[in-house]
Amino acid sequence: MDIAYLNRKFIPKEEITISPDDRGFLFADGIYEVVRWYEGFFYDIPSHVSRLKRSLRELRINWDGADLFPSIASDLIKLNKLENQPVMVYFQVTRGAARRTHFFPSPEVTPTVYANAWGFVPDIKSIESGIKVMLKEDIRWSRCDIKSIALLANTISFQEAFENGMKECIFVRNGLITEGSHSNIFFVIDGTLFTHPESNNVLSGVTRKNVLRIAQDLGIKIREEAVQENRIRFTREAFITNTSAEITPVIELGGNTLGEGIPGPVTKLIREKFDAEIRAIKG
Amino acid sequence: MDIAYLNRKFIPKEEITISPDDRGFLFADGIYEVVRWYEGFFYDIPSHVSRLKRSLRELRINWDGADLFPSIASDLIKLNKLENQPVMVYFQVTRGAARRTHFFPSPEVTPTVYANAWGFVPDIKSIESGIKVMLKEDIRWSRCDIKSIALLANTISFQEAFENGMKECIFVRNGLITEGSHSNIFFVIDGTLFTHPESNNVLSGVTRKNVLRIAQDLGIKIREEAVQENRIRFTREAFITNTSAEITPVIELGGNTLGEGIPGPVTKLIREKFDAEIRAIKG
Repeated sequence: MDIAYLNRKFIPKEEITISPDDRGFLFADGIYEVVRWYEGFFYDIPSHVSRLKRSLRELRINWDGADLFPSIASDLIKLNKLENQPVMVYFQVTRGAARRTHFFPSPEVTPTVYANAWGFVPDIKSIESGIKVMLKEDIRWSRCDIKSIALLANTISFQEAFENGMKECIFVRNGLITEGSHSNIFFVIDGTLFTHPESNNVLSGVTRKNVLRIAQDLGIKIREEAVQENRIRFTREAFITNTSAEITPVIELGGNTLGEGIPGPVTKLIREKFDAEIRAIKG
Repeated sequence: MDIAYLNRKFIPKEEITISPDDRGFLFADGIYEVVRWYEGFFYDIPSHVSRLKRSLRELRINWDGADLFPSIASDLIKLNKLENQPVMVYFQVTRGAARRTHFFPSPEVTPTVYANAWGFVPDIKSIESGIKVMLKEDIRWSRCDIKSIALLANTISFQEAFENGMKECIFVRNGLITEGSHSNIFFVIDGTLFTHPESNNVLSGVTRKNVLRIAQDLGIKIREEAVQENRIRFTREAFITNTSAEITPVIELGGNTLGEGIPGPVTKLIREKFDAEIRAIKG
């Protein structure tokens, strides 16, 4: 029986219910985080906690429990006996349940805090062989820097990619590549690593940040600068990053085969360093 | 005790619960409608039903019960003994509850269908004296034509207006006025009635459509054309429309007083015809 978390309580997941008045259900008025458990530790959970706090602050959801996220996540691992496998812990905070009004509830109501965990099988095939991804106009809102649950644009875009046999949908806004429906994207052009700078059009991914750190350590030239769609044909390498895909090579982008159509050397170098760090933490 | 509707059942609202796996709660993957009861009838419910069907079709939510909306709405009025007052009936359909994936559940799951009703007091003061509204960059996504529950941008924008003593937040996209956070907007410039054309940047409001019909009947010159932000200073009249505000004059827009700062004559003319239609249906 799965145990999940709701408002300070760990209870069987099937007993967890949400009010139809919850602003998460009516307005997508909430935020979330997903952190990964590596059979023994959470990867960079402090970065997830700070992003969680930033999301809450940006939406002015007054919940002061963000620092509890690591212990809630650990408890979910233990209660569900998931210690010895790769796990995702999902964490969502909404503004709470109130009479439906576009303005925020006044007086404030208690935020809804929900979390659950599930074991998963990493997609090793994609990580090793690379993936094909679709290119599509970025139809999302202008605050993609907030990790909000207003993900409808992401899901319908990803679904289109999925139905076309692609593993991610990469967005283009005003001719510039922003990010994927649930990943950031990096390009290697003339030996330089490019990714969209932090802005209101991309999420500041935790893996993105760690990849930039690793690339710097490796002495790779970095430019946090958006890549124009029309430069894809000059791109020999690309990869996406997120908490579950880690660093997954892109071998085909919007119909263009990148380089030899196999994971590139810079991607591999970064990937190896990333894996080495994980092994080092595991000890 | 309020009676609400969930998946073919009328039950006390406090007994209605939503799964935390509902895609409405996790992804804003759903749509809604709000219809108004005028002490005896629903205003133009066929238009709400067709828009509901369009929203479902656009998001590929396979629910074939849209034609039941009028009878569900009527039953909610009766069961809650709301016949003799103004009422809003809210109706929401999400893609249903499933394991959290960005792609749509496969196989498909049963959509979640929720509805409730509440009596309300129309804001006569605003309708008679007009309202002040804020102007703000349109941060919403590019599919505002879908009446989706991904309303986070609308709520945070409206909240800002609300805190500044304004009754609506009007959006500007690329220098053009689109619509409000939960209304359409009309302008009277040199005797011509302007409103943003139907497009992916505005919702096709039911009241908007009826106002256009009424204006045409009255022989008012109409242009369905977006108004540039910098033309506001030439605007003598404006009004917003939606199901609850009906036709509410705007007397101040983004700090600019319109005309004499009182509801304008064209607005009043349309309003009177609208009211006359309501009275005629009431009989």
